[in-house]
Amino acid sequence: MVSVAILGGTGYTALELIKILLRHPQARIAALTTRQEGSPLVHAIHQSLYGRLTVKCEDLSPAEVAKRAEVVFCCLPHVASMEAVPTLLAGGAKVIDLSADYRLTDAAVYEKWYGHAHSDAARLKETVYGLPELWAERIPGQRLIANPGCYSSASILGLAPLLKTGWIEPTGIIIDAKSGLSGAGRTPRLGTLFAECNESIGAYSVGNKHRHLPEIEQILSDSCGVAVEAIFTPHLVPMDRGIIATIYARLKKPASDGQLLEVVRQFYAGRPFMRVVEHLPVTKDSANTNYCDITVRQARGQAIIIACLDNLIKGAAGVAVQNFNLMCGFEETDGLQV
Amino acid sequence: MVSVAILGGTGYTALELIKILLRHPQARIAALTTRQEGSPLVHAIHQSLYGRLTVKCEDLSPAEVAKRAEVVFCCLPHVASMEAVPTLLAGGAKVIDLSADYRLTDAAVYEKWYGHAHSDAARLKETVYGLPELWAERIPGQRLIANPGCYSSASILGLAPLLKTGWIEPTGIIIDAKSGLSGAGRTPRLGTLFAECNESIGAYSVGNKHRHLPEIEQILSDSCGVAVEAIFTPHLVPMDRGIIATIYARLKKPASDGQLLEVVRQFYAGRPFMRVVEHLPVTKDSANTNYCDITVRQARGQAIIIACLDNLIKGAAGVAVQNFNLMCGFEETDGLQV
Amino acid sequence: MVSVAILGGTGYTALELIKILLRHPQARIAALTTRQEGSPLVHAIHQSLYGRLTVKCEDLSPAEVAKRAEVVFCCLPHVASMEAVPTLLAGGAKVIDLSADYRLTDAAVYEKWYGHAHSDAARLKETVYGLPELWAERIPGQRLIANPGCYSSASILGLAPLLKTGWIEPTGIIIDAKSGLSGAGRTPRLGTLFAECNESIGAYSVGNKHRHLPEIEQILSDSCGVAVEAIFTPHLVPMDRGIIATIYARLKKPASDGQLLEVVRQFYAGRPFMRVVEHLPVTKDSANTNYCDITVRQARGQAIIIACLDNLIKGAAGVAVQNFNLMCGFEETDGLQV
Amino acid sequence: MVSVAILGGTGYTALELIKILLRHPQARIAALTTRQEGSPLVHAIHQSLYGRLTVKCEDLSPAEVAKRAEVVFCCLPHVASMEAVPTLLAGGAKVIDLSADYRLTDAAVYEKWYGHAHSDAARLKETVYGLPELWAERIPGQRLIANPGCYSSASILGLAPLLKTGWIEPTGIIIDAKSGLSGAGRTPRLGTLFAECNESIGAYSVGNKHRHLPEIEQILSDSCGVAVEAIFTPHLVPMDRGIIATIYARLKKPASDGQLLEVVRQFYAGRPFMRVVEHLPVTKDSANTNYCDITVRQARGQAIIIACLDNLIKGAAGVAVQNFNLMCGFEETDGLQV
Repeated sequence: MVSVAILGGTGYTALELIKILLRHPQARIAALTTRQEGSPLVHAIHQSLYGRLTVKCEDLSPAEVAKRAEVVFCCLPHVASMEAVPTLLAGGAKVIDLSADYRLTDAAVYEKWYGHAHSDAARLKETVYGLPELWAERIPGQRLIANPGCYSSASILGLAPLLKTGWIEPTGIIIDAKSGLSGAGRTPRLGTLFAECNESIGAYSVGNKHRHLPEIEQILSDSCGVAVEAIFTPHLVPMDRGIIATIYARLKKPASDGQLLEVVRQFYAGRPFMRVVEHLPVTKDSANTNYCDITVRQARGQAIIIACLDNLIKGAAGVAVQNFNLMCGFEETDGLQV
Repeated sequence: MVSVAILGGTGYTALELIKILLRHPQARIAALTTRQEGSPLVHAIHQSLYGRLTVKCEDLSPAEVAKRAEVVFCCLPHVASMEAVPTLLAGGAKVIDLSADYRLTDAAVYEKWYGHAHSDAARLKETVYGLPELWAERIPGQRLIANPGCYSSASILGLAPLLKTGWIEPTGIIIDAKSGLSGAGRTPRLGTLFAECNESIGAYSVGNKHRHLPEIEQILSDSCGVAVEAIFTPHLVPMDRGIIATIYARLKKPASDGQLLEVVRQFYAGRPFMRVVEHLPVTKDSANTNYCDITVRQARGQAIIIACLDNLIKGAAGVAVQNFNLMCGFEETDGLQV
Repeated sequence: MVSVAILGGTGYTALELIKILLRHPQARIAALTTRQEGSPLVHAIHQSLYGRLTVKCEDLSPAEVAKRAEVVFCCLPHVASMEAVPTLLAGGAKVIDLSADYRLTDAAVYEKWYGHAHSDAARLKETVYGLPELWAERIPGQRLIANPGCYSSASILGLAPLLKTGWIEPTGIIIDAKSGLSGAGRTPRLGTLFAECNESIGAYSVGNKHRHLPEIEQILSDSCGVAVEAIFTPHLVPMDRGIIATIYARLKKPASDGQLLEVVRQFYAGRPFMRVVEHLPVTKDSANTNYCDITVRQARGQAIIIACLDNLIKGAAGVAVQNFNLMCGFEETDGLQV
Repeated sequence: MVSVAILGGTGYTALELIKILLRHPQARIAALTTRQEGSPLVHAIHQSLYGRLTVKCEDLSPAEVAKRAEVVFCCLPHVASMEAVPTLLAGGAKVIDLSADYRLTDAAVYEKWYGHAHSDAARLKETVYGLPELWAERIPGQRLIANPGCYSSASILGLAPLLKTGWIEPTGIIIDAKSGLSGAGRTPRLGTLFAECNESIGAYSVGNKHRHLPEIEQILSDSCGVAVEAIFTPHLVPMDRGIIATIYARLKKPASDGQLLEVVRQFYAGRPFMRVVEHLPVTKDSANTNYCDITVRQARGQAIIIACLDNLIKGAAGVAVQNFNLMCGFEETDGLQV
């Protein structure tokens, strides 16, 4: 059994992490943190956990957390995360960082998109981006993993097969993505009140203003060896969870639906959480699971790729546990087979 | 044309009021207020009003509002309302108060339920409760009307016919009410975030802790001449708008469904917004309208009354305009026939 | 007063039409038809209309309908519509056809997409496509109008300004559209059951298989004088109503957001239902109204156009009444200003 | 490993059963049946199961099913179930019947409520009602278990503690229950289309017309030794899953909230899926789990009991697996601890 902690235990991703870890055969939750006063029991924050876990959420320093846990899932907001991670690592803990702080390799790009100088820039180049479907072999032995963004995972997993095999052009890509509301976080805001966003869909960060774009382009460029350029438009959909990315990319040469599907299928052969399907997946198919469902069609010289996943699981807590499993030498699927 | 103002223009009820007043043949919106700085245009607060109204939301004092408008719809929170209403009246305006501040006739009861001494207690006894289906004749000529609570309207309209005609016992009544989320207001809170309350229903204020209960009992007792005692349990339902009150009351003597229905039908004969129906109404039937749909069944010596209405319209802004029409001598239905 | 009839009165579009016609100052509903037996009252089919309209839904022939009504809104499914329209016209009625049967000018294209030879092909070339924002002047005097598809309206209204003014390339256009479930009709099917499609979003007809595509391309090509080619991907979103079309088109020359917005604004100057906005519209802004909200941004040489409308109103019943108003010489906005 | 089959594999309950059985350490799915032609793979019927199970859904006779499986979960509709169960039992299989056919002990009562004479009446008296929280000790050794109805479980689990301990009167009970739409089944009907029931709540079977009422009264009367009489009003809520029963019962003597809560807590001490809570549970707390959450308050001499559970799991598939576990001598929680 490995002792684990979650730094920042109050959000939706933390809740999903806790649920997965509760059924994980090798993990024991040793600490949960919050800045709330009074060390509330976890079910005072996540009512659904009543009777399932009796750990308190404490206002612990990163150094204290590192003493209690061998592996720390850092669910803090960006900036807060890079302030905690060096201490966690120095304290001997392994870290899976679910914030954006260690995803970009270039501190200048980070500063441009996040509006804050990076205080731990030296570590950026060496940190592995934890998307096991791209490079599972890089993850064992790491002490810090940058867990991918939810939109990023859907977009990258959708594009990588056809990009890496040279079927599609690396520029002029359109990623039109739609997410459930849990992706907008658990902090009360007008825009995510039920009566505001229910019965409504809207785009936001239109015009390449969303922070997952540089992450998508960097990882695809790195992994595919070409300079990838995309337009990324996210939307909020009135549902709790799920992302669908509808992706348009120009084919370099004519191809049938079947040929393209076969390329994707071979690319993900043996990957336990990738379901390459002939039918059109909907987000409900993969809701509450760690699966990513992908299919592809073509029209007028473009590939149309559909990728669906649960933003809180495959897009956050689930892939974090995949990374945890690979870092610790467990089965990649431990705790993740619902 | 009558000049009207809305004091507290940022909430959902204010938005519905504006929409109704925009199509009202006799009303002109002269002022909207907010405590937000910078006098934003109304569509900066209610995006759906873009192009429909160009009034600014200003941080006006009640005295200034009274200068601009002949009739003021007061959409402030309780306590804030009773601090503004005397000034509005002194300034010559007529007032329809949508808060709870003038609904209860007894200042001690007000203080007990709202935790605040009433600063305008003298006016409580004389203020008319604006439920035209009970006493439309009392409203003309009034200068202050207490607009009913949304749950209260559904409950009172459901119970009054059988209570007043002596078919049901005035005690032991159960009101199990369910409301859409707009009823919980537009102030960001954890409990009304989409991802918290979507896909979920729950009761709140269980054990007669909801503030609409004393209002329901007072109005029913007054209008029916018996001391009414009820248990009231509200629930939040994952939808924008609509209330259904499922009400259980002991029959004094055996009755068929048809007999009870006929009593209700006669009670509301000629009332333009009451639809007494044989079928089982659902909240969607009356959504976005000023209708209240009612039916009744019996089983094991109890009447089971179903009353549905739109909490923002018949439960708030719509009945407010009914009151406005009656106060001003217009057709009761002006602006309300969608 | 003009007597109107609705052929096929049981669907969602017919319900919206009825609601609009009920408040229309110049229209009187003279007949509603259904194939259901027993001539049910309209509220037996649309429960929300109880007390608002007492017309029966009758199993009338087109010839009988033409005797009763001066203008007929034909809400039949495609194929059924082209079987009824010639009789309606021969009987002296004017017709607004809400099916797809008279939208395409080329009978061969119709047959290819709808799998059925056109039985009234001669009339295709002369029938005006009823999108008043493109050519309001063509509609007065017509005896048959082809009412646009819902996706088509959003897509065409979004693209026309920049296409017609030559700012964007006519090929390589991507239309990623999302619709509420009412767009899928009122016939019970597994895929539109609440528990199937709630909490889920999915694409359908992926790979240019949706029948609104040829309509979009034909109308844009005709009105803009260039051969337009697009990829069109529709999605179903768990909400009742609303469409958002997120449209990507290559700019012919660099342009700022502000320049593009100004082009769109001038294009629709004076059009009462077009709201060209700086902010990002969401579908809720135009829900239950006849507005179409549009904005535009640019990134990496592409214009990103967002167009929102209510699929049942501006996308169907509302524009039908616009056409009715223009055909009959009424104010274009009659009945449509909620 | 025990071989299991599901008779009637296409509904929502069957899907939940499959998911639970897939993670059950002791069960192996040996057969799934459907009347659909062509023996489709299970993921052609339940798309979310793609890649998780490759069993075909076959049109097997009960006799064939009994040859393949040691335990059969019968998910057929009522009537169809009692036609299959005798053959299954004769073929040597143990049966958990999820229909209503073996829940009522009196064939005359069955015929009155289900409109069909019972063809296997002799077995009614001896069949155990599978609600382990009432009598877990009766289930081991049984060859046929009648799995409870979803509303019934919530109602019985809510009432049993206070009834059996004599705190509340057995008559005059009000059960006001609200369910998600999956409870209405997967057969396409107008009333359960998304665009019909979304954004709406309504009561149905009002006036004690719902078939779960005789079941509730029979089981409570039997287990508590008093003749129980209730009024039961179900509602449909726009959400996929979850039931909340708000129950009102007259207290025999005054009691505090705390006293009542303690009674319930002691009643369910040691029961792994009962969570007796001080806070007000919402349906989302127990969604996707086998928990039943209960709390209690009092007002005006009545106990107000709130019971929440997932209608598809604790209300159907989950309790079926509890029964399976108890019948087979496994841990009661096997497969059920998510």
